[in-house]
Amino acid sequence: MVTVNRNYLKLPGSYLFSTIAGKVSTFQKENPEARILRLGIGDVTQPLAPAIIESLHRSVDEMAHQETFRGYAPDLGYEFLRDAIAKNDYKDRGCNISADEIFISDGAKSDSGNIQEIFGADNKVAVCDPVYPVYVDTNVMAGRTGAYNKEKENFDGVIYMPCLESNGFLPEIPEEVPDLIYLCFPNNPSGAAITKEKLQEWVDYANRTGAVIIYDAAYEAYITETDIPHSIYECNGARTCAIELRSFSKNAGFTGVRLGFTVIPRELVRDGVSLHRLWARRHGTKFNGAPYIVQRAGEAVYSQEGKKQLREQVAYYMRNAHYIYSELKKAGYSVSGGVNAPYIWLKTPDQMSSWEFFDHLLRNAHVVGTPGSGFGAHGEGFFRLTAFGSYETTQEAIHRITQI
Amino acid sequence: MVTVNRNYLKLPGSYLFSTIAGKVSTFQKENPEARILRLGIGDVTQPLAPAIIESLHRSVDEMAHQETFRGYAPDLGYEFLRDAIAKNDYKDRGCNISADEIFISDGAKSDSGNIQEIFGADNKVAVCDPVYPVYVDTNVMAGRTGAYNKEKENFDGVIYMPCLESNGFLPEIPEEVPDLIYLCFPNNPSGAAITKEKLQEWVDYANRTGAVIIYDAAYEAYITETDIPHSIYECNGARTCAIELRSFSKNAGFTGVRLGFTVIPRELVRDGVSLHRLWARRHGTKFNGAPYIVQRAGEAVYSQEGKKQLREQVAYYMRNAHYIYSELKKAGYSVSGGVNAPYIWLKTPDQMSSWEFFDHLLRNAHVVGTPGSGFGAHGEGFFRLTAFGSYETTQEAIHRITQI
Repeated sequence: MVTVNRNYLKLPGSYLFSTIAGKVSTFQKENPEARILRLGIGDVTQPLAPAIIESLHRSVDEMAHQETFRGYAPDLGYEFLRDAIAKNDYKDRGCNISADEIFISDGAKSDSGNIQEIFGADNKVAVCDPVYPVYVDTNVMAGRTGAYNKEKENFDGVIYMPCLESNGFLPEIPEEVPDLIYLCFPNNPSGAAITKEKLQEWVDYANRTGAVIIYDAAYEAYITETDIPHSIYECNGARTCAIELRSFSKNAGFTGVRLGFTVIPRELVRDGVSLHRLWARRHGTKFNGAPYIVQRAGEAVYSQEGKKQLREQVAYYMRNAHYIYSELKKAGYSVSGGVNAPYIWLKTPDQMSSWEFFDHLLRNAHVVGTPGSGFGAHGEGFFRLTAFGSYETTQEAIHRITQI
Repeated sequence: MVTVNRNYLKLPGSYLFSTIAGKVSTFQKENPEARILRLGIGDVTQPLAPAIIESLHRSVDEMAHQETFRGYAPDLGYEFLRDAIAKNDYKDRGCNISADEIFISDGAKSDSGNIQEIFGADNKVAVCDPVYPVYVDTNVMAGRTGAYNKEKENFDGVIYMPCLESNGFLPEIPEEVPDLIYLCFPNNPSGAAITKEKLQEWVDYANRTGAVIIYDAAYEAYITETDIPHSIYECNGARTCAIELRSFSKNAGFTGVRLGFTVIPRELVRDGVSLHRLWARRHGTKFNGAPYIVQRAGEAVYSQEGKKQLREQVAYYMRNAHYIYSELKKAGYSVSGGVNAPYIWLKTPDQMSSWEFFDHLLRNAHVVGTPGSGFGAHGEGFFRLTAFGSYETTQEAIHRITQI
């Protein structure tokens, strides 16, 4: 008798952004004249940089000729891309990561969802609260948690680390020792950044307890302050306790292009087994490489022209972040984030719940944001705005918000 | 204490094609003058068709302008592609499959590896022997099998359905009733095809027993005979028992472009749960869509020009298949496949084992093929050659083989 994976049934409702899309679509149907402005989902809006476009055209042309056509990519990614990453993202920042510790993928969402697979079902998972839903949901699907606890609005068996105003939205070492610790800095959704000193405490803690840190650095390109690390491998000892996930979505506008990578140092051994070896096996068995043309586009991100153009693109979005932050602050909102991250995290006014504020903005300002409670119980009473719109849209949206 | 997924450790050695690549690389180093010809891995060699190249350039240009730039794709794929698939691959063949039953992915390897996740850990899996390794390996990794049995050269707890000369390389209904039945037709590795009448027996069996068939139709474009079904949904009742996996790799040369899809009819319910709903949840949680430009390339596959060009491309490879088949037959080899599939399955001469024949060909003809035993114990004594080389390479390789 066929059985299904009943862990899936523990997940309440649909994925956060599908729920939002549904609400917006209903509102638009009922109010066809409303010009809705979206600062909700973290999707970029600027076109791909010219260096990337050029590289795509060039590699498409290669695919048109037998002599330069490329079939299956190497399992772990093309060397030209892994070398560029090792040099630019790691060696140039003083991190000791080699090209063969880098696994190219189709994006950080896949990697952050799949990485848990190489661990046993009995590992105890710790996450920030609020948190990017994929970390928890994929552990639920794998049976690594208990049931959904309606009262607490979270899952039994998961260690939640509250990120609150009172701790500057940074997690504290939990009482119970976790096995897998998901950390994302600069943070989605709160926009909070962690200093190198603070991150070193986590690395030391993981090495002391034997825990593994899964470090999501998807937003590192938005860091503007000097004491904020771009990679966990800037900390001493991270090679023996940390996996790092990286994305091209936000630093290069690849949300619709799909490229990311995972770093697993060779020293990272648990339960007597190399995690690098396990991930290589998963990659080789369940994945067939990112498209050649997309890997070439990724290479262009590290070209001199590409770097220059992308610095401008990131600056464009950060101008939005700064605008949102300062205008809302001026208007009396309590805001954080937005300095080392493209996300602004605001406290809902008048003790509105996150979803009440969502409805309020949608109805009265025709602006879409993301309810903080969608990221976890401790996100209740907060709201996320993203800096990924155009400058004009951002200005108008903030104007509308401050007028209602 | 962190534990790893110890099911991974049940897998012996490396993925088949990595082993072959290693052997070939060693031989090449030791014999730098040898011009090695590859009829091993099922990777295409013809450039992308002009209609696809045009579509890629066009969509790359869209990504260069803010008004036409695309970020995150819809969860399940763009409608333009799902509509084209529903019409061309299904409606036009008389199959009742709608666009919202089609899930776009980055390729059939990912899908065939991931699909098992939506089922419980206690399901009993049946596979052909020999078989594409991904079906078994991913079930091993999920803990759905016992240990590797060295004597039998297979995994305890899996139902193997021998595909032998004596049964025309077609599986027979197994004694023990399985829950999940993986079928791939036209078959990789044997090149065998199944008639609609024979496939109907499997569909009836699955509906009778409650089993689910996971039907891999990656090679349907190579079918030349009229009584061979292109889709399992050509059979009556398949909507209540079958999932179909499709690839763009072989019909359109997308091995390095990465695109595929999975079909799950809405009627397919097991254990009281819609499998469509579970797969949608997995897709939405662990995947972020195939690249926009790649989905546009997929759309071009169904354009009038694209269809015409791809018919020619498939015919090119099938000329190779025909050549390999007839020349080896003439030379006294016992061969099958190659009529509705790009694979030729030959019996090794002189009672050589599959790997002995592999070494023999590599050493004496500098030709790479794939040992049948790499696909399962019952592939021992057989060998797979692919038709995906150029015509010139194929001719020379077969000439060399028949001369040694």
